[in-house]
Amino acid sequence: MDSRSIILLAHGSSDQRWCDTFETLAEPTLKTISNSRIAYMELAEPSLDTVVREGIAAGTHEFIVVPLFLAAGRHLRKDVPAMIEALEHSTGASIQLSPPIGENPLLGQAVKEVVTLQLDQTAAE
Amino acid sequence: MDSRSIILLAHGSSDQRWCDTFETLAEPTLKTISNSRIAYMELAEPSLDTVVREGIAAGTHEFIVVPLFLAAGRHLRKDVPAMIEALEHSTGASIQLSPPIGENPLLGQAVKEVVTLQLDQTAAE
Repeated sequence: MDSRSIILLAHGSSDQRWCDTFETLAEPTLKTISNSRIAYMELAEPSLDTVVREGIAAGTHEFIVVPLFLAAGRHLRKDVPAMIEALEHSTGASIQLSPPIGENPLLGQAVKEVVTLQLDQTAAE
Repeated sequence: MDSRSIILLAHGSSDQRWCDTFETLAEPTLKTISNSRIAYMELAEPSLDTVVREGIAAGTHEFIVVPLFLAAGRHLRKDVPAMIEALEHSTGASIQLSPPIGENPLLGQAVKEVVTLQLDQTAAE
C-alpha cells in the first residue's frame, strides 16, 4: 500500500448539489486508490485542513493534492499554495500540489468523448 | 456532416493562461468534430453571442452548448439559460444547453486515470 495520501481538492460551495457532483466525480478514484479523499478549499466540509490533520492522526505524513479544477486561476496560483505552506509549517507534513486535472491531456480526450455521446443522444431524441 | 454546431462553453478569464488551458482542453474536440467551436461566458472572446451569430451567418441554426464546467453552479443554473433564451429570441436559432461535462461518468474515469499517472510520476521522481 502506498503510504502517501491523495487529496482530491474541489473548490467547494454552499450548494449541496454542487458538492454532490464533485463527490460523484471523485468516486472512481476514491474506490480504486487507497488512502484517497476529497477535500474542499472553502464553503464545504471536509476542508483541506481537516483532511490533512486526520491523515496525520492516522499515520500519513506525505500528501499529494490533485485539484479538481479545469484550469489554474488565482485560487490555484496563490490561495491554495499559501494554505499548503501554512499547513506544512504547522503540521510538519509534506504536501505536494499537482497541476489541475484540466491540464492533463486525458481530460481533453474525455471532453471529446462526452461531446460525441451528447451528439449521438440528441440525434436520437 | 452534422448541420448542428457544438459550442464548448468555458467561463472565461482575463488571464490568458487560463484561457490557454481551456483551448488545449477543447482541442481534441475541435479537431475531431466538425462545426465545433469554443466560446466564453464572460471576460474573454469569442463570446457565446459572437459564436452563435457567426454560426448563423454561416448557415447553422441549431446549436448544442456543452459547458466546460465540472459542476453546475449559479452560472449554469441561471446566467447561461438566460443568455441562451435571449439569444434564441433575438436570432431565431435553436440552442440546447447540455449538462456540464463533470456530470458525465467519463470524467470521473478520467480523473482516476490522471491521479494514477500522478502517483506513478511522483513515485518515480
